[in-house]
Amino acid sequence: MIIVLKPQASRADAENILARIAEAGLEPLHMPGSERVVLGALGDERVLAGLNLESDPMVESLKPILAPYKLVSREMHAHDTIVRIGNMAIGGSAFQVIAGPCAVETRDQLRNTALAVKAHGASAIRAGAYKPRTSPYGFAGHGPAGLRILREVGDELGMPVVTEVMDTADLDLVVEHADALQIGARNMQNFSLLRAVGKAGKPVVLKRGMSAKIEELLLAAEYLLAAGNDQVVLVERGIRTFETAMRNTLDLNAIPYIKQKTHLPVVVDPSHGTGIRDLVIPMALAAAACGADGILVEVHENPAVALSDGAQSLYPDQFKALMDALAPVVHAVGRTL
Amino acid sequence: MIIVLKPQASRADAENILARIAEAGLEPLHMPGSERVVLGALGDERVLAGLNLESDPMVESLKPILAPYKLVSREMHAHDTIVRIGNMAIGGSAFQVIAGPCAVETRDQLRNTALAVKAHGASAIRAGAYKPRTSPYGFAGHGPAGLRILREVGDELGMPVVTEVMDTADLDLVVEHADALQIGARNMQNFSLLRAVGKAGKPVVLKRGMSAKIEELLLAAEYLLAAGNDQVVLVERGIRTFETAMRNTLDLNAIPYIKQKTHLPVVVDPSHGTGIRDLVIPMALAAAACGADGILVEVHENPAVALSDGAQSLYPDQFKALMDALAPVVHAVGRTL
Amino acid sequence: MIIVLKPQASRADAENILARIAEAGLEPLHMPGSERVVLGALGDERVLAGLNLESDPMVESLKPILAPYKLVSREMHAHDTIVRIGNMAIGGSAFQVIAGPCAVETRDQLRNTALAVKAHGASAIRAGAYKPRTSPYGFAGHGPAGLRILREVGDELGMPVVTEVMDTADLDLVVEHADALQIGARNMQNFSLLRAVGKAGKPVVLKRGMSAKIEELLLAAEYLLAAGNDQVVLVERGIRTFETAMRNTLDLNAIPYIKQKTHLPVVVDPSHGTGIRDLVIPMALAAAACGADGILVEVHENPAVALSDGAQSLYPDQFKALMDALAPVVHAVGRTL
Amino acid sequence: MIIVLKPQASRADAENILARIAEAGLEPLHMPGSERVVLGALGDERVLAGLNLESDPMVESLKPILAPYKLVSREMHAHDTIVRIGNMAIGGSAFQVIAGPCAVETRDQLRNTALAVKAHGASAIRAGAYKPRTSPYGFAGHGPAGLRILREVGDELGMPVVTEVMDTADLDLVVEHADALQIGARNMQNFSLLRAVGKAGKPVVLKRGMSAKIEELLLAAEYLLAAGNDQVVLVERGIRTFETAMRNTLDLNAIPYIKQKTHLPVVVDPSHGTGIRDLVIPMALAAAACGADGILVEVHENPAVALSDGAQSLYPDQFKALMDALAPVVHAVGRTL
Repeated sequence: MIIVLKPQASRADAENILARIAEAGLEPLHMPGSERVVLGALGDERVLAGLNLESDPMVESLKPILAPYKLVSREMHAHDTIVRIGNMAIGGSAFQVIAGPCAVETRDQLRNTALAVKAHGASAIRAGAYKPRTSPYGFAGHGPAGLRILREVGDELGMPVVTEVMDTADLDLVVEHADALQIGARNMQNFSLLRAVGKAGKPVVLKRGMSAKIEELLLAAEYLLAAGNDQVVLVERGIRTFETAMRNTLDLNAIPYIKQKTHLPVVVDPSHGTGIRDLVIPMALAAAACGADGILVEVHENPAVALSDGAQSLYPDQFKALMDALAPVVHAVGRTL
Repeated sequence: MIIVLKPQASRADAENILARIAEAGLEPLHMPGSERVVLGALGDERVLAGLNLESDPMVESLKPILAPYKLVSREMHAHDTIVRIGNMAIGGSAFQVIAGPCAVETRDQLRNTALAVKAHGASAIRAGAYKPRTSPYGFAGHGPAGLRILREVGDELGMPVVTEVMDTADLDLVVEHADALQIGARNMQNFSLLRAVGKAGKPVVLKRGMSAKIEELLLAAEYLLAAGNDQVVLVERGIRTFETAMRNTLDLNAIPYIKQKTHLPVVVDPSHGTGIRDLVIPMALAAAACGADGILVEVHENPAVALSDGAQSLYPDQFKALMDALAPVVHAVGRTL
Repeated sequence: MIIVLKPQASRADAENILARIAEAGLEPLHMPGSERVVLGALGDERVLAGLNLESDPMVESLKPILAPYKLVSREMHAHDTIVRIGNMAIGGSAFQVIAGPCAVETRDQLRNTALAVKAHGASAIRAGAYKPRTSPYGFAGHGPAGLRILREVGDELGMPVVTEVMDTADLDLVVEHADALQIGARNMQNFSLLRAVGKAGKPVVLKRGMSAKIEELLLAAEYLLAAGNDQVVLVERGIRTFETAMRNTLDLNAIPYIKQKTHLPVVVDPSHGTGIRDLVIPMALAAAACGADGILVEVHENPAVALSDGAQSLYPDQFKALMDALAPVVHAVGRTL
Repeated sequence: MIIVLKPQASRADAENILARIAEAGLEPLHMPGSERVVLGALGDERVLAGLNLESDPMVESLKPILAPYKLVSREMHAHDTIVRIGNMAIGGSAFQVIAGPCAVETRDQLRNTALAVKAHGASAIRAGAYKPRTSPYGFAGHGPAGLRILREVGDELGMPVVTEVMDTADLDLVVEHADALQIGARNMQNFSLLRAVGKAGKPVVLKRGMSAKIEELLLAAEYLLAAGNDQVVLVERGIRTFETAMRNTLDLNAIPYIKQKTHLPVVVDPSHGTGIRDLVIPMALAAAACGADGILVEVHENPAVALSDGAQSLYPDQFKALMDALAPVVHAVGRTL
């Protein structure tokens, strides 16, 4: 940790902070310059977080040297973690495709959609029983009934199922029915939920919040690993920017950056990442090209009548076109589909 | 609702959509132009949300005519709502100051801080027992023990207390101890929490999410009103932008805009809104000048050793300076302090 | 154009606006609803821009039906425009690579870098003689001397050269030496420059501003086409967002979106788009996968001593690795390299 | 300057960089830690900018200790600079109001508007003869004829005039007619223009770019001071964020922050800062409350027919209401109007 003092800081101010650093068990360092006094703290600076040195009125700024996360860091764990969701492994050489409707609407709707995505090569089903909706008047999912349909269709087709949990109160029920628990973008910093899901013993699919920095996504994952669960898949699903042409701005820079920083797998959601059906295929190809471990994509047997997110859902024949286009790109980067 | 069709849409496509509009009970309108066909739906267009017309592959774009919220709208309820939190009324002619530390750390810390803010004119105490923290290694609050201290200090000083609830599982306990329930910025779209808090029978202090549009804040409030609770105070606490000089960008434009759109009171949190102690006073004055109904401000008996948010917390004598500076500005805009 | 009136608008207010629409030569339309009066204007609504209806105090909001640009629109010109810069054609089946240093530093530096990128397959050289620098104390380029070196190296190697023009006062000199004129991100809305460059008779490489919406990029291009020049290549080079891990957020969503809206070619600059050398290769592959017509990439014979942008410049052997990795991805999407 | 090396950096890598620091005349410092080697450079680190240490492949990150600007810094020049534009002084105890239409449309329009704003207390006239317009089809100002009208009306009323210069080619003509040269938001990083305007010998009104960090605004001002002109007024006019309810997000945090960092005066443009007529008055009051030295506000004799920016222009009687409301707030913060 580097600590820059304000110009008016006295010798005594500096010594006071150096003493606090030493008390915390780190090696203090004093670098008086002509315009500013700079202090250093050598060692595991994470213990300094508790000192809240930024609160000191004589501190101008802090510069941490190390990342604030540990368990998710590739520095601590160099090899790629492979996450197993049912019979699907994410993070290895296979590029995985998780597909399905935004929400479980009816058994037929889910089953028909799942049959179609399975026929064209998807490895797992995604569908929501609990749906976060901006308006209280929107369709919020069928809850427990939706979970049961999802489980039954997954079992019938032999496909693992991924579904969102929005509330600690629903966690047991979702754990009982799902192969992986999704934490949605709006809940990425619902820390009560993160702690509870971390202890639930199921793989987790953690979506980046719409205004979350990558570091914050990794710290959210750190909550899960700190609770004992390293079966975590990160999801880039678009961030909120000034651009209004699309629903979100898909941040593909995040993919190679995240792969450098963490051992956890990362997949891309081009459906939420664009919000526009016609952009899903090119962005799925781009995701594969820049190193994502898979995609999470919305498909509906008939998007025109979908109860939610229809504008970004693919028709089954578009999903086939996606898979056809994806194969050569996945192979071009040395992976399998 | 105005519906613009894609150039390739046929007459039959238009008629299909017009029929769906009529079925929903609205008056359909057909406006064929030289370059686009435009359709209209006259009436309470909120019933159209369920049709999800944006999912139709022949629809280019939609323009709603009415706001998506109803109960919070000033069009539905023209007069200002006054929210009563204990003996404090927010939304009337008095400009209210809610002050206190970020977190309950110890009984002495809370009591000393509360005595100081009361002496200088604060009307209510704010302090957290449950703290959302970006890192799992940060101080997350004392939970139930913190709630008890908060209640006791509030009772001793005769001041209402506002504190955050982060999880539906903690709701009963927080309701038992607090005069108002705060929903934090990271939980503004935790819809399970919104629904539960809406039914809890206590006033709510709802903070704008760091990337929430004003419309989304109003829709989050709509969840609370739809659950039967109209005692809701909105809080502007800074949004996330590209600017890195401050922790957040305080969006004061939002204050007069929100006052036009809704009957609910709105207060400003200049502490989170800036993240920098030295900017709190000028931004509190600006909040009063542009029409806010009060402020929510962090004060600590000794910010230099605060366990959280010390860099943005005022010292007690700075809080006195704030109150001294605030009075003439509040009077200048015709209100009382 | 759809015009929504405020609730308090009277019948006379509506008629006044309808009369202005009719005077402008469009067909006026009156749609009185229960909560708002909505007006329409059918025909070429671009003539309405001059009416500035948004200024009317009785107008609540406007919704244009058509895009504000015409000449760049694919609706006006369905076929892809192919831009020829020297012997390079951008916008056809070949994926083009334009490479070189940020700035012309010395003849040797440019020549060595250009030899390296040519050897590995680049089609054109990029390098700046005039450099926009955030600080007045940064290296701002060698100006005319840089232009001469650039021209000579281009001629010697038989490669077209692309370089930035920052000021109308330098335009003649840049036109004399360059095969294409680059307009930088910071000048995307320098309308005097756009008008002058539009008349200069050379192909233009137009970079998206760091906070420019795609629509604004297309309107900047419209300036060029309106001045008589349709040889325009658009460049996505990253936008400014809240994310601080990278210099910019590369917005690859923009590529397929732009290809749908305009007939002009679009290339990606993964160097500025990330600001981090190690992210350039994956993002170049992603650009090829999602439909870009080429890339603009910074390469330096020794980035560690570059006078500008070294942190994002590739070493020559990294450029070779880029080209090796790019080939299979380009072929996977059916193009040639 | 603090330099953090990558984990794989060797002893030799560190020594190489330390040698470069010493060669540049600074004192090098070596701080080997358990997880990273950190280097320091003590002295006037601005000379290090030329070394571009961030380009070194062994450098993980840099932390400058000092601000990158000097001449504009309050550390270099502690006292407030007062800028004189004609008979108006900005930066002293008087809160200044510069008002007028977006553009000079006709002599009558300008004269009537100027008479109105003068009658209600404005100190200077603002109006554009050269207008930056997003679309090539918008009204771009009357150019030289507009300048002449502006000068004549200013002379007649005895008010100084502020007008925008967009191109170095127009500079002489604008200098001849204006009392202060405005650099618009889109040209804040038009460095050729900054250099030329810095030498023109007239006060400058420099608007913050819509995606410019405050540090970048101060560096743009540094261009002007480095060219010999310290008569510079900074303008906060709103930044671009994800919020779409207003045209821009007015960043009032910037006002007290800028006042701490620089000795230059800063004014607020609540017209562009909101884009909505009804928000102008409250935001002007907020600007005064948080320490701005004045406002720049758009007023039109009849905004409903303005050729540009009518939706954000005040009617003359609204301008009177603004001045009436402003007086007590300006007095409340101890200034004069």
